[in-house]
Amino acid sequence: MKKKIILAYSGGLDTSFCIPYLIDQGYEVYAVSVNTGSFTKREIKNMKRQAIKLGATQYECIDVSVEYYEKCVRFLIYGNILRGDSYPLSVSSERAFLAMAVLKYLKKSKAKYVAHGSTGAGNDQIRFDLIFQSLAPAVKIITPIRDNNFSRQDEVDYLASKGFSWPAKKKDYSINHGLWGTSVGGKETLTSHQTLPSDVYPSQLKKEKSSLIKIEFKKGAVYRLNGKKMKPIELIKKVEKLASAYAIGRDIHVGDTIIGIKGRVGFEAAAALVIIKAHHLLEKHTLSKWQTHWKKQLADWYGMQLHEAQYLDPTMRDIEVFLEQTQRYVNGVVEIKLYPYKFDIIGVKSKNDLMSAKFGSYGEENKAWTGEDVRGFTTLLSNPHKIFYAINKNEKI
Amino acid sequence: MKKKIILAYSGGLDTSFCIPYLIDQGYEVYAVSVNTGSFTKREIKNMKRQAIKLGATQYECIDVSVEYYEKCVRFLIYGNILRGDSYPLSVSSERAFLAMAVLKYLKKSKAKYVAHGSTGAGNDQIRFDLIFQSLAPAVKIITPIRDNNFSRQDEVDYLASKGFSWPAKKKDYSINHGLWGTSVGGKETLTSHQTLPSDVYPSQLKKEKSSLIKIEFKKGAVYRLNGKKMKPIELIKKVEKLASAYAIGRDIHVGDTIIGIKGRVGFEAAAALVIIKAHHLLEKHTLSKWQTHWKKQLADWYGMQLHEAQYLDPTMRDIEVFLEQTQRYVNGVVEIKLYPYKFDIIGVKSKNDLMSAKFGSYGEENKAWTGEDVRGFTTLLSNPHKIFYAINKNEKI
Amino acid sequence: MKKKIILAYSGGLDTSFCIPYLIDQGYEVYAVSVNTGSFTKREIKNMKRQAIKLGATQYECIDVSVEYYEKCVRFLIYGNILRGDSYPLSVSSERAFLAMAVLKYLKKSKAKYVAHGSTGAGNDQIRFDLIFQSLAPAVKIITPIRDNNFSRQDEVDYLASKGFSWPAKKKDYSINHGLWGTSVGGKETLTSHQTLPSDVYPSQLKKEKSSLIKIEFKKGAVYRLNGKKMKPIELIKKVEKLASAYAIGRDIHVGDTIIGIKGRVGFEAAAALVIIKAHHLLEKHTLSKWQTHWKKQLADWYGMQLHEAQYLDPTMRDIEVFLEQTQRYVNGVVEIKLYPYKFDIIGVKSKNDLMSAKFGSYGEENKAWTGEDVRGFTTLLSNPHKIFYAINKNEKI
Amino acid sequence: MKKKIILAYSGGLDTSFCIPYLIDQGYEVYAVSVNTGSFTKREIKNMKRQAIKLGATQYECIDVSVEYYEKCVRFLIYGNILRGDSYPLSVSSERAFLAMAVLKYLKKSKAKYVAHGSTGAGNDQIRFDLIFQSLAPAVKIITPIRDNNFSRQDEVDYLASKGFSWPAKKKDYSINHGLWGTSVGGKETLTSHQTLPSDVYPSQLKKEKSSLIKIEFKKGAVYRLNGKKMKPIELIKKVEKLASAYAIGRDIHVGDTIIGIKGRVGFEAAAALVIIKAHHLLEKHTLSKWQTHWKKQLADWYGMQLHEAQYLDPTMRDIEVFLEQTQRYVNGVVEIKLYPYKFDIIGVKSKNDLMSAKFGSYGEENKAWTGEDVRGFTTLLSNPHKIFYAINKNEKI
Repeated sequence: MKKKIILAYSGGLDTSFCIPYLIDQGYEVYAVSVNTGSFTKREIKNMKRQAIKLGATQYECIDVSVEYYEKCVRFLIYGNILRGDSYPLSVSSERAFLAMAVLKYLKKSKAKYVAHGSTGAGNDQIRFDLIFQSLAPAVKIITPIRDNNFSRQDEVDYLASKGFSWPAKKKDYSINHGLWGTSVGGKETLTSHQTLPSDVYPSQLKKEKSSLIKIEFKKGAVYRLNGKKMKPIELIKKVEKLASAYAIGRDIHVGDTIIGIKGRVGFEAAAALVIIKAHHLLEKHTLSKWQTHWKKQLADWYGMQLHEAQYLDPTMRDIEVFLEQTQRYVNGVVEIKLYPYKFDIIGVKSKNDLMSAKFGSYGEENKAWTGEDVRGFTTLLSNPHKIFYAINKNEKI
Repeated sequence: MKKKIILAYSGGLDTSFCIPYLIDQGYEVYAVSVNTGSFTKREIKNMKRQAIKLGATQYECIDVSVEYYEKCVRFLIYGNILRGDSYPLSVSSERAFLAMAVLKYLKKSKAKYVAHGSTGAGNDQIRFDLIFQSLAPAVKIITPIRDNNFSRQDEVDYLASKGFSWPAKKKDYSINHGLWGTSVGGKETLTSHQTLPSDVYPSQLKKEKSSLIKIEFKKGAVYRLNGKKMKPIELIKKVEKLASAYAIGRDIHVGDTIIGIKGRVGFEAAAALVIIKAHHLLEKHTLSKWQTHWKKQLADWYGMQLHEAQYLDPTMRDIEVFLEQTQRYVNGVVEIKLYPYKFDIIGVKSKNDLMSAKFGSYGEENKAWTGEDVRGFTTLLSNPHKIFYAINKNEKI
Repeated sequence: MKKKIILAYSGGLDTSFCIPYLIDQGYEVYAVSVNTGSFTKREIKNMKRQAIKLGATQYECIDVSVEYYEKCVRFLIYGNILRGDSYPLSVSSERAFLAMAVLKYLKKSKAKYVAHGSTGAGNDQIRFDLIFQSLAPAVKIITPIRDNNFSRQDEVDYLASKGFSWPAKKKDYSINHGLWGTSVGGKETLTSHQTLPSDVYPSQLKKEKSSLIKIEFKKGAVYRLNGKKMKPIELIKKVEKLASAYAIGRDIHVGDTIIGIKGRVGFEAAAALVIIKAHHLLEKHTLSKWQTHWKKQLADWYGMQLHEAQYLDPTMRDIEVFLEQTQRYVNGVVEIKLYPYKFDIIGVKSKNDLMSAKFGSYGEENKAWTGEDVRGFTTLLSNPHKIFYAINKNEKI
Repeated sequence: MKKKIILAYSGGLDTSFCIPYLIDQGYEVYAVSVNTGSFTKREIKNMKRQAIKLGATQYECIDVSVEYYEKCVRFLIYGNILRGDSYPLSVSSERAFLAMAVLKYLKKSKAKYVAHGSTGAGNDQIRFDLIFQSLAPAVKIITPIRDNNFSRQDEVDYLASKGFSWPAKKKDYSINHGLWGTSVGGKETLTSHQTLPSDVYPSQLKKEKSSLIKIEFKKGAVYRLNGKKMKPIELIKKVEKLASAYAIGRDIHVGDTIIGIKGRVGFEAAAALVIIKAHHLLEKHTLSKWQTHWKKQLADWYGMQLHEAQYLDPTMRDIEVFLEQTQRYVNGVVEIKLYPYKFDIIGVKSKNDLMSAKFGSYGEENKAWTGEDVRGFTTLLSNPHKIFYAINKNEKI
C-alpha cells in the first residue's frame, strides 16, 4: 500500500519535480498550495491542473490570507519592519503560515509524511522543518531535492524523462510571489555586484505621470485608501496595483541566513514599502520618543526572528502585544506621491499629532516655557558632564 | 569699559542681529565662525565683511573640518547613522564642534561672555549651552533672541532701525549649510503635511542622464572615489558635487527635540546619503550577523545622543571605539548609480566579502554541509519549541 | 481670604515643617497622606493628630494600596526589577501614585495650590513636579524647602520657634516607609564608604533559627503563601513580617539621580527581595531564552524610568502589556529558606517547568536527538565562523 | 599504523574512560590538560600519572592562565558578568581557551584527530566542536561518549573491565574546577527543586569570625589586595582562599543551553563573586548613567555568547574594546566584609568618584543649581507628557 504524503506545492520547478519523483519513491502525493492573498483564481486553476497532470492524487489550495494578515502582516506594518533597512520579508514571513496550514491539512488527512521542495542551501527548508519538528515531531519530513542535492537542471531533466517539459526561462530564475511582495533569485544574485535584469521583475513601468494616494491608518492598521474604507487585504492589493504601475519597490536584499552563509536575493514589494514608509511617518508624529526607540528594537528583533524561522518562539507573542499596544494613537491620513521607480511621503494629518503648535513651534517660538526655564533645564542637564569633566580632567574630547 | 563677548556667528539673520544688539547692551563683539568643511573662501570673506559692517570688533573663521571629520563624521559613516531612518544629522552633528571651537577661542582671548543666536524653541540652544555649562561653567552665556523671545520679523525691524536691510526671502527660511548637508526650515515645516518649495533647496536638478560612481572604503572610511585616492573631506565634497547635480538627498525630518516637542525640518544631503547607503551595503557583505545587530543599536543611540547635545557623555567615546573596531574588514568598492532625484546602490567588490561561493550559494547549492546535517541542525534548533508546545498545549499561535 | 493649598504630608520633618510655614505665608493647609499599603491605623491616627496640631485645616489619608499594587508593584515583580541589581525601588516607585492621589484630591477640593516638602537636591521633587506639570499645568506648585534651600536644622529651629519640638534622632535620618520597602538616608550615605548603623534600619534581628517559606505564583503574580491564598498586599506584608524577623533585605543603593548627580541611600526591603528572587527563579524554569533576554531589557528600562519620574510616558503602558504577556506560564511554587541576614532560594515546582526530563537531562542524557544530530548542528552553527576565519586570516583571537 | 589522536584530558571519569576506549578503537592517545590557573603541581602530577597508567602515549599540561585572564576573565570583571544574575561562567568561559590550546598542540604534533569526553546532552560538546569546526575544519572530531550515548555507569564498567577502578562517590557528581570557580552536577541538579548536599562543594566553612578585605582596581582590573600589588591570577587565587574559608559563593545556575533544553548546575565561585560585586560597586561611583546602561547590555550579551560557544564571533572583539574603554576611570579601593556563607560590599574610595559633595549632596543640599533652575528643568522635562495628555485625553494611567 502506498504511503500518503502531503506536498507543499507552489507550482514552481522544485515542487513540480517533487510530484513524479515522490510517486516514483512509492508515495501517494497530495499537493497543497497555500494562498496568502496574492493568488488569482486563474493561478489556482493552473496549479491544480498542473499538479494533477504531474500525477498528484489530490490538489487543494488553502486560503490563509486573513490569518496571515491578522497574525503577521499587521505586525510588520506596526513595526515598520524592513530587514537590513530594505527588505519587507516579502516571502519569508509567509513560510510559517504555509507550513502551519499544510500541517493542519496533514492532521485532517491523517497522513504521516510531509514533503517540501526546498534545497539544502536556503532558509525555507529551516522554516518548514522547524514548524513540523516543533508542532508534530512524529511526522516524517521528506525533502528530495535537499537529500539528493539535485540542481535545477537535474529537475528539468528528470521531468523531461517523465514526459514533462519545463520552460527554459522559468528555470533560470526562482520567483516567489505573495501578498507582501515577490522575491526573485537568479544567477546575478549569486554574485555580490550584479543587478537583476529589469524584465525579470514581476511589474514593469506602465505609468509616467506622478499621482497622489492617501492611506488612512486606524490604530496603526491600514483602514482607508483615498478615502474609501477597505478590508486590509483588499487595500494592500489595491496599493500594490497603483504603485506597481510605477515599477516601485525593487531592491536587492543581502543578509545573513539561518544556515550561516550570506544570501542575496532580489525583490519587488511596492505595497509593502509604500505602506510601511507611510506608517512610519505617521508614527513620527504620534508616538513618544521612547516608544519609537523601543518599538524599533523589538520590531527589528521580530523581523529577524520571523525571517529566521522563529515564529513559534513565545517571545514573538510578547512582542506582538507590545507592538499592538503602541498603536493606540497611530491614527491619521498619510499622503504619498508616486513617481516612476520612486515615491515620496508628503505629510500627515492626524488628530493625534503630537506636533502641536499650541505648545510651541520648533525653532521658532516657545509658548509653554521661557528662556529662563531653558537655562534651568540646561543647568541641571549639564550636571553629569560638569562633574565628570571636573573630576576627570584628562578625558579626550 | 566694555565687556568682551564672543559671538558664535553664522552670517544668518539671528547671529547678524546679535552684533548690533549686543553692542547696544554694552558688549564688545568678537564674531567667530566655525568652518566644518563647507565654507568657500568667498563665503568666509562675505561673513567677515558683514560682521565688521554690523559692528564687530573682530571676526575670525576657525577651520575645524579635519577635527569634525575625525571625531564625528567618520563615526556617522561607520554607524550608517540616519535619525528616524532618514536624517543624517546634517547640521546637528556640527554644533558641538562649533561650540568647542568657540570655547577654545574664548579661553585664548580671555573673554568671560559668550553669545549665541538661538531661539528658545530649538535644539541648538541646548547644544551650545551644554558644551559651555559642562566645560566652562564660569562663562556667562548671553542669548538675546531666546531671552527676549524675539521673532525673525523683530530682528529684521531692529536691523532696519540700525540701518541694515535684510532680504525678505532670506527671512522666510532658516538655512544652515555644513559639510554633511543643509537644513531648511520655513513655514511649511511648521505644518505636518506641507512640503518645502523645490527652489528653497540649495541644489537644483542640472543633470538628467544617469551616471555611475565608485566609492572605495578602507576600514569603513571613505578612501577612493572613482579609483582616485582623496582626503576624506575632499571626497565628500566631490560626491556632493556629483550627486547634487541630480538634486539627490532631499527629505523632511520629523522627530523629538531635546526640549520635548516634535520638530520638523527639511534637509538636503546628497553626499551623506550616498556614502552611508554605500557603506551600509558593504557592511552587509563584510560584517557578521551580530556585529550588524549591535552596531545598529549603538549607532542609533550615538546618533540620538549626538543630535540631543550629548557629545560630551563619556559613553560616546566608548561607542566610538566600538564602531571603529567593527570596521576592521569593511574594505571594498561600492558602485552607485545616480539618477534625477534618486540613486541605486548596485553592488560591492571586496576581498573581505563573506558571501563566498566556496562555502555554498544561497538557495542553490550546499558545499560545506549535507542535507543530513541540516536535519541534525533543525532537530536541535527545534528543541526549545518542541518542549514549550509539549508542555504548554494551549498556547495560541 | 486665605488660599487653599494641598500639602502632600508624610509626618516626617520636612512636611511637618511645611504646615506652619505655609500658614505663615498665608495659606490654608489641607494635609493629605497617601497610604500605599504599609500604614497601620495607629500611624494614620498619629499623622492626623500631628497635622492638626501643627495647624492643618483638614487631614486626610487616601488609601491607594490596591491601585499601587495593580498598576505598579506587580510589574516590578514581573520584571524582577532591582535598580543597579540591588534596589527594588522601595520608595521611588510610590511617588507617582502619591502625587496622582494628591492631584485627585486637589481637583475634588477645587484647590489651585499644591505643596510638597522636597529639598532641591533629591529625586522626589522631580517626581512630584512632573506629575503636576504634566496632568495639571495650571496648578501652582509651592516648595518651601527647595525654594529657600532650608536645612533640616533650619526646619527644626523654625518648628521650635513655633512651639513644636522635634526629636534629635529623627532629625538625623530621613526615613521613608512603604509597602515595597523602607529607605534610610543619613550622614553615612552622604559618603561613599560608610555604612549605616544597624539600629537605624526599621527591623532588627529577632530570629536565629532558619525556616522555610513557600510562595506560589500564578501568572507571575503572588498567589499563595505557605499554601494559603491571600490578597497580594496581604501576602507581601506577611512575607515582610516573616523575613524581616531575620533582618533580611538591607543594602545601600548608589545610582544616578534625575538631577544628574550620584545619590546613595540605604534601604531595607525584605519582602521585595524575597519575592523578586523567588519569582526570578521560577521564570528561569518557565520562560524561553529570548523572553528572558527581552524582559530583562524592558524591565530594566521600566525600573529606570519609574525611578526617574517617567511613570506617565506612554512607553510604560506598552512595556506593562509586554511584561504581563510574558507571565502567562509563570506558575508554580518556590521554596525559600530564611536565615539571619540572608536567604536562599531552594527550588521550584511548576507544571509549566520547561526543564523536563522527557526530552533529555542536561549533561547526562539526550533522548530527543543523537550524537549525529549534534554534529549536523555544529556543522551549520560553525558556518559563519568557518567563512569568517577562512577569509580574514589575520583576525586576532 | 595507529592514528594519532589528541584527547582533551581533565582527569575526570569521562576523559579517563576515553583513553583505553580510544586505544581499543585503534588510536594512539596523546592526553592534553589545559591549566587556566587553578591546577596545583600535585594535581598535574596526578593527572599525568593517571593518563599514562590508562595507556596514554604522552601527557602534557598546557598553561593558558595568563591568556585566559587577559583575553577573558578581565572582560568578565569589566562586565560584571553573572549569567541569570548569578553564575559567573565559572567553567563555561574556559572551554574556548581549552579547545584553542588543544588545537595548537594538535597542529604542532601534526595530528589529524581530536577527541573530547563530552556527552551528547551538554554545552561543552558544542564549545569544543565549534572551535575545531571553525578554525580547523579538516580535523576529525571523535566523541566516544556522545556517539554511543554511554552513561557514567557504562564508563565505570568499561574501566573496570580494563582493570581500572573508579571511586563510587566521584562517579555521582561531575565536578569541574577552574580559576573562576567550580561547577558541580549531580542527581539533585537534574531536578528543579533539590539542592546539592553541602559536602559536595569544594570548600567547607572553616572560619566563623567576619573579616575585612580591600581590593583595589586600576582601570577596572584587579590591582592590589589589602594594599599589596599582585599579578591578577595570584590576586584572584588569594581572594578565593580568603573567601572560600567562609564557604562563600555557592549557588545553582538554571538556564538555557546551547542545545535548547534547560540546564541546572551547582557552582562555587567565591573569588569571582566577591570581585565582581566589588567592581560593580566601584563602577556605580565612577561611570556615567549611560555607560552603565550600555555596558550592562553588551556585557550580558558577551556573557551569553561566551557561555554559548560563540567566543569566535568577531562581535566579541568589538565588545571587548568597548568594555575596556569604559574602564578608563574605574580606579579605587573597595572594602568587602566576609561572613560565613555571605559577604557585604561596604563602600569605595576613589579619586574618580563622581559622587562629589562639591556639586551637591543627594537629598540634602544643592550647590550647583537653584530651586528656580529645577522648576525650569521640570517645565521642559514635562513637555512631552503635557502635550501627550492634552491631545490623548483618554489615555489610562
